[in-house]
Amino acid sequence: MSHPEAVVDLLALLAYAELQAFDQMANDARLAPDLHRRAMLSEMAAAEIVNFRRLESRLAALGAEPQAAMRPFVDVLADYHRKTEPKDWYEALIKAYVGDGFADDFYREVASFLDSPDRQLVLEVLHDSRYATFAGEEIGSAITADPKLANRMSMWARRLVGEGLSQAQRVAADNPALAMLILTGVGEQSDLQGLFKRLTAGHTARMATVGLNN
Amino acid sequence: MSHPEAVVDLLALLAYAELQAFDQMANDARLAPDLHRRAMLSEMAAAEIVNFRRLESRLAALGAEPQAAMRPFVDVLADYHRKTEPKDWYEALIKAYVGDGFADDFYREVASFLDSPDRQLVLEVLHDSRYATFAGEEIGSAITADPKLANRMSMWARRLVGEGLSQAQRVAADNPALAMLILTGVGEQSDLQGLFKRLTAGHTARMATVGLNN
Repeated sequence: MSHPEAVVDLLALLAYAELQAFDQMANDARLAPDLHRRAMLSEMAAAEIVNFRRLESRLAALGAEPQAAMRPFVDVLADYHRKTEPKDWYEALIKAYVGDGFADDFYREVASFLDSPDRQLVLEVLHDSRYATFAGEEIGSAITADPKLANRMSMWARRLVGEGLSQAQRVAADNPALAMLILTGVGEQSDLQGLFKRLTAGHTARMATVGLNN
Repeated sequence: MSHPEAVVDLLALLAYAELQAFDQMANDARLAPDLHRRAMLSEMAAAEIVNFRRLESRLAALGAEPQAAMRPFVDVLADYHRKTEPKDWYEALIKAYVGDGFADDFYREVASFLDSPDRQLVLEVLHDSRYATFAGEEIGSAITADPKLANRMSMWARRLVGEGLSQAQRVAADNPALAMLILTGVGEQSDLQGLFKRLTAGHTARMATVGLNN
């Protein structure tokens, strides 16, 4: 059972996150070492816009004004991206792989608290797994070729997660309806500690897959 | 009747132009005055990637290595975009409207010299007319609101066309097979002067539509 205001908040957060991720990944594509890789990251970016449009339509169908609904999330997402600006191709890939992986796991959990059709919509706009596969393979083979990279990249991944969690707390503090939706949903199904445990386990597994330490 | 090497050159030029246009428009979206307009330009950018992938697949099907085939066009397109970097939202819109409009007219002419399925493919990857409509309406209403803008924007449009033609000459000089395809195709159907006349007429009509002088 989900509160309408909180659902609008959630869809608006997700929509603006897609728009901002588009911007960031389109820009990061310039860091690619060749045209094939540049095209791949550009394509990952482009996929975000398709999802953005779907969320925007749903917001309008719910009677929300999409721009106004997204406004509360503009600064917090801009801050996240400003503080985690990739300096090279591997930082960009890890940001896409670790950051999006973590965020997707979180949204997947929250989707289970929503009613249809919003539940289905949120699940459908999560990132295509072939992009995670691409990013994971790129990172994995780079670390195999240059094991020294692993240490720096592990630190970078920790910084991404830390920054993401800190911005997530800010979102929760500034958007009580959304925070209540999550807390109530979590309370019905398990507990907040269980949620964090699952998110951390997913993150650790992703890191291990590509040869990074958590 | 089209020469295989020239067809590969043409599709590679078009493919890299799409990838570069994605990059430029995704970046220009940051100049948008609000979220709605930013999303619209981001979506225009994303559409380029879908077209890029179609051209890349066709290049591979023709036995070409897409990256190698695109390489001769990297510098010339980078130069065009570097020399025509928009300074504000209206310069970005005019670049999309005037530049893409001119380029699309040119590719539409060249498509008629190609055999199937390349002719059809080139026609299909030209820009969706609803984006030109959006850009045209934005420019038109900005000029109605602030007539002084028209003069500066007309000069900007002239610069875009001048820069585009100068880079096109460089492409022709560096890629004789492609230049021959166009000259032969033009020769069979009409004459080079006729082609330029049609391109100029299309450009003048686009400018007039939004209240700009050629």
